[in-house]
This record gives sequence, structure tokens and C-alpha cells, in this order.
Amino acid sequence: MSHFVVAVHCGAGYHSVQKEDAYVKLCKSTCLKDSLLTNAGVGSSLNINGCVECDACIMEGKKLVFGAVGAISGVKNPVEVSATLVNRQLGDKLSLGRLHPSVLVGDGAKQWAEENGIKTLETRHLITDEARKTYQSHKRKLDIVNERDSSKKMKLTEQREDKTEESCDVEEEEKIQDTVGAIVMDTSGNIATAVSSGGISLKQSGRLGPAATYGAGCWAYNQRPGKPGVGTSTSGSGEHIMKTLLARESALSIQQEDNASLGLSNCYKNNFLESEFLEEEDDKLAGVLALKQNEEDTVEVLWGHTTDSMCVGYMSSSLKKPKVVMSRLPEGGIPGKSFTMSGVSI
Amino acid sequence: MSHFVVAVHCGAGYHSVQKEDAYVKLCKSTCLKDSLLTNAGVGSSLNINGCVECDACIMEGKKLVFGAVGAISGVKNPVEVSATLVNRQLGDKLSLGRLHPSVLVGDGAKQWAEENGIKTLETRHLITDEARKTYQSHKRKLDIVNERDSSKKMKLTEQREDKTEESCDVEEEEKIQDTVGAIVMDTSGNIATAVSSGGISLKQSGRLGPAATYGAGCWAYNQRPGKPGVGTSTSGSGEHIMKTLLARESALSIQQEDNASLGLSNCYKNNFLESEFLEEEDDKLAGVLALKQNEEDTVEVLWGHTTDSMCVGYMSSSLKKPKVVMSRLPEGGIPGKSFTMSGVSI
Repeated sequence: MSHFVVAVHCGAGYHSVQKEDAYVKLCKSTCLKDSLLTNAGVGSSLNINGCVECDACIMEGKKLVFGAVGAISGVKNPVEVSATLVNRQLGDKLSLGRLHPSVLVGDGAKQWAEENGIKTLETRHLITDEARKTYQSHKRKLDIVNERDSSKKMKLTEQREDKTEESCDVEEEEKIQDTVGAIVMDTSGNIATAVSSGGISLKQSGRLGPAATYGAGCWAYNQRPGKPGVGTSTSGSGEHIMKTLLARESALSIQQEDNASLGLSNCYKNNFLESEFLEEEDDKLAGVLALKQNEEDTVEVLWGHTTDSMCVGYMSSSLKKPKVVMSRLPEGGIPGKSFTMSGVSI
Repeated sequence: MSHFVVAVHCGAGYHSVQKEDAYVKLCKSTCLKDSLLTNAGVGSSLNINGCVECDACIMEGKKLVFGAVGAISGVKNPVEVSATLVNRQLGDKLSLGRLHPSVLVGDGAKQWAEENGIKTLETRHLITDEARKTYQSHKRKLDIVNERDSSKKMKLTEQREDKTEESCDVEEEEKIQDTVGAIVMDTSGNIATAVSSGGISLKQSGRLGPAATYGAGCWAYNQRPGKPGVGTSTSGSGEHIMKTLLARESALSIQQEDNASLGLSNCYKNNFLESEFLEEEDDKLAGVLALKQNEEDTVEVLWGHTTDSMCVGYMSSSLKKPKVVMSRLPEGGIPGKSFTMSGVSI
């Protein structure tokens, strides 16, 4: 019999040292609760229209079924809809031989959730005061920049102004805030993975992120003859993770090597930091949380990231209490260019 | 200098012999027109709510940029929005260091299209009389089946009724109707691919298909040192194509073999018909149109399918007029289980 293992991440990005205790506490409580990933819909970053739109996906490793919702509004717990999508696919086909959908987006996703017994609510109930304040502050910055840009164009002067002035901390500040991911392995060795995200502040309405993209947000594969079991869950710069299908590629790479760490670092080197698909990108930002079940039933939980920091936690039937790690790039490491990695055997 | 090559498909599925001439004509005209894939939004199959919702994607092989819209309504030419998404990603970043989205869905996609100068219209203008009639017919069948199912449940009798009675020809009849794909290679060897689809009749509103899924609908990769150029565009049973990331996997497989046909058939065998991801599926239905640019600048156009038929066309600067092929499974071939393949060197 295998261990029961839960591993979670509360996003890869920039976690200030001042708030480290709060993140660690969040990650610890996430490990303990049944309600994994609950409330990802509440308090999410607001999109450019000031609304909450969430992505969430689940993959299960036995039948290799994936379910996701994208740009969904008015659902408190988007990952619950993804779980229902997975369950439906595991059941009978629809009437008239129709296949169940695996990914649903926008209003249609909300409608389907309602029809399938999931409670929906008005979007405004998902907006917290803090999220509104952050939105207003970012929106103000954006309006100032956009106004300046348009007056610049009108005057046709100062064409080559220093660009650094324009960049504010929207990305770094927010990217970590509402992505949360999990990997679970039950005592029969069934692996399931999930990730849920409200996306980045001021994102375009309708923007689909990795948490709704097959192969990008999470991957799960139960142990099969000659192949170890593996689960991954990602976080970071959405478009980078999507272009490199990071969850899938890191899982395959981990399966290919006897040593899980070597597999993860190979993937980061070849398929992320040196990927042809990110050649144009200056900073390549992503974190991967992974679990590997070896044939002799030892389990490794490992994590790697190119972001400044990544907060991960894990709990297993062999541990007395959950462990939480705030992983940071080593001194001298450059976010978006350097990679760090660690892990434990359970 | 390379040839200029255009290859298109008008879907893989079931094309009746009676209508073959019409399909061939459509495919031929698609090869000739500038307006490739135009009007995929008009006349699309209607979803369960009686609305048109389309998916469309484009990938370009030089910078490896992908753009897609999913479940978009009110746009006459969805692939135009995808093209604009690709172009934006090839340009400067957004203000405040924000990345351009690569995939947009639902209302947000339509809003973005409007803001980016693409004409939108009321959804009802996309519904043709024929599409409405088909919808009404299918909806009637569905209502009858659903009513019967629910009365069956109430009576708790006839639990094991013959299932074949329930399946109507919704899938086979419709699956081919509004998916259209293209591969273009310009004289500099730049490869771009696209696919556009209204999806299957009576689909769930918000359902995202392969034509909005990275790696599933199309793939493009320009020739690089030691690697041939390749482009693919798929059609068929959406969820099967998504689960196997068929566009990407067939492209990688074609690149791995000296012989393009061997690459494509390897992919079909290992990653589709015998894929672990489709173990539960009885019938595995997909078509792939592919282009391979070899190092010595010869170009192959090839196509393979497990569907009953697939209609493809191609044109090149070395041909006088477009060629169209209605490819059919050989006699005795079983749709969803058998594979056929053909191709030409240009």
C-alpha cells in the first residue's frame, strides 16, 4: 500500500519576506483542509473590467481524464466545476452518443455548473475590498500610462523615453496572489492534480490561462508497468507555461529519468529556460510542484522555480504534521533566468 | 527559394458520396481564395442553446506564436481574431509590462475583437436557415430521447434497453460540416497553420474544442538547423484530438522521421489509435493534414485519417491549378479503428 500524500503550492512569484509567515500559514492550512483550493474564486485579482474571472483544472491519473473551466464568473469554487467535469467524463456518455465536454468557458461554463447542481452567485460577491483597492490602484497607474502614451503619440516627441519608468510592479506583486495548486495521491496510488487561478490583475476579460489549458496547468499519471506515477502542478507567468506545456513536459521528463530531480531540472533547462518557444522572452517565470511515485513505492515530492520564490507544503500518512517550505532563489539568482530546486522523499 | 504552398482541409468525418462534388468544389475554391477560412462563423452548427459559438486558432512557425479564440459569438470570421492575437504577440508588450493574451474566450474575446477593429455583429446574423433546420431536427430527437430517459427513470423499468436505438447520426452527420483548416508556406519557408470550427451540433454552450486548444488544432514550426519545417491542422472528434494533442504530436513525429509518412503513421499508431489517453474510447476519430519541408527544400503534403473520409486540397507555385482529393478509408476499413494515409511531393 502506498502512502497518502498531499502536496500544495500557493503560487510561484514574489513573496515578500515581511509576509512570509502569512504565506506559510496559508499553505499549512491548505494541506490540512478537506476544502483544498476552496475559495479561489473569492478575492481573486480583478480583470481589466473590474470583474473576477477564474480558471481551474483537474486531471486524474487513472483514466487520464482532464476537466477545466476558463474565464468563469459567479462561481465561488471553480475547481469544483472542473471536478464535476472530470466525474461526468468518467461516467456514461450523453444521449445521442455525444461526448462530455472537457473544457468549458465563460457564461456557458457557469450555466453548466448551475445545471449540474453547483451553487452560483453574483460576481460582485466574489470581489473583496482588498481586491477592489488593488484594482483601483493598478487601473489608475494604467490610465496614467495610457494617457501619457497617447499624448506622446500626438506630440510625436520623446520617442525613446526610458521604458523602465513605465513598468510598475503589477506582475510581480500580483502573480502569486490567487494561484493555488495541489497534488494528491491516495493509498491505492491514484494521483490527481489541480490548479486554480484568478489570473493576473488587469488581465483582458476572456483571457484563458494555464489553469484552463490541457498540459499547462497540471498533469497526472498513475504508475503503470515500466512507468512511474507522476503528478505536476504549475504557477507563474501564464503565457510562458502555456507555450511550453510545462505541466505535461515536466511530468514526462520526470518519468524519463531514474532521478526525479534530474528529470525536473532537464525539463527546466531544455524545455523552459532554453526553449525555442520562449526565445523572445527576457524573463521566464514559472514554478513546478511535482510528485513521483517510484516502482518500489517510495514517493518524492519536489519543486523547482525560476521565480523569486515559491511556497509549497506537503503532508503524508507518514508525517505527523504538514511541512511548509518557502523556497527562494539562492543569493545572486536572477528571477526569470536562474533555477532552483529542492525535494523530499516520503 | 521555397515553393509557395497552400493546403487545406474541409474536415474529416463522413462525406456522403452524393455530395462529394460539392465538397470538392468547396475545397478547391478554399485553395484559391485569399479569404481562407472566411465565414466559418456563418452557417455553423448551433449549440444546445441554439446559438453559434466558434473556435479558431492560428500558429506561425517562425517565432512559434499561437493565437486562439474559443466559444466566441458575434464574429463573422473568428480566425481573423486569432490572426490579430498572433500579430499583437509579435509586437510590443502591453503597458505596465503586461503580456498579450494568446487565447481569449467568450464575451471577452468578442469585446477584444471589437476594440481591435474587427467588425462584430449580432449572433442571429450568423445563423443560416439550414443550420436552424438541422438544429430543430436534432433538438427534437434529443428532447424525445431525454423525455424517454426520464420517464424510464421514473418507471424504473427497461433498464437495459438496446443502446443502439438511442444513437442518431448527429455526430457523423455534423462533425465535418464546419471545420476547415489550412497550412500555408510562403516562398521564404515561413509556415503558418490554422483551423476554425463551429463545433458539433447541440454542443454545450461554452465548450472549448481543439480549434481553441494549443497543440490540438494546429501546429507550425519553420525549418531550423537539423530540424525540418512542419505544419499540421486537424479535424475530427474534438475531445480525442485534445487529449492526444494531435497537431503537436503528429508534427513532432513527422520531424523525427526522415520519411514524413512514417512519422505520421507512427503518431497515429502510438499516440492516437493505441494511446493510453483514449483507452476508454471505442471509436477514435481524427484527420490530420500535414506539410513537411525537408532540408533540401522539397515539400511534402500529406494527410491521414481514421474517419470515413477527409477532403483535402492543395495548391503550389509549381502547380497550374489546385488539386482536391476526397480521401476515403479503403474497403473494409472501420471508421474509428482503421487508418489511411496518402500524400504528394511538391
